Amino acid sequence: MIKVSVMYPHSDGARFDHAYYRDKHMPLVLTRMGSACKEHSVDKGLAGGRPGTPPLYVASCHLICDSVEAFNAAFGPHVKEITADTPNYTDIKPVMQISEVV
Amino acid sequence: MIKVSVMYPHSDGARFDHAYYRDKHMPLVLTRMGSACKEHSVDKGLAGGRPGTPPLYVASCHLICDSVEAFNAAFGPHVKEITADTPNYTDIKPVMQISEVV
Repeated sequence: MIKVSVMYPHSDGARFDHAYYRDKHMPLVLTRMGSACKEHSVDKGLAGGRPGTPPLYVASCHLICDSVEAFNAAFGPHVKEITADTPNYTDIKPVMQISEVV
Repeated sequence: MIKVSVMYPHSDGARFDHAYYRDKHMPLVLTRMGSACKEHSVDKGLAGGRPGTPPLYVASCHLICDSVEAFNAAFGPHVKEITADTPNYTDIKPVMQISEVV
């Protein structure tokens, strides 16, 4: 299994609408991916590792799929629509990572 | 529920023993935390968001607890022992984040 993580780096003054992300954007992603997304999680950043520091990422989502190929097949056809929704909740450019679920 | 993420940033030439991390270090963490850790996941970084790029993090773990207080109460007394095990699998200094599970 692989995990695709999309993470929104914290920066002072940046905009992020957590309610829209949770209630509109993530349901869009999950609907478009269908059964290819086996599990998912959404995080809202609270704090960094040291007291009083901001989180590295204000928000992130993690999508579990059988393989990179399965993710690409399910996500690829919808990337334009999904990306077009991003300005509706943030002006942060996300970073991505693909991991093996150990 | 909160998620404590410990992430090991990729850097060229850095050392990370994934087998030790999976088979020795994570079981140590989970044993010491006991029932305070409700769920956990371990990731091995495969790739970045763009083709041919390295992952942001070579490895990470995510520990789910009821609250920050519950995490601190379970992890705090063992932080010295757990930190002392780190050089056995890596020379990377990890970064941490605390998130709310949405």
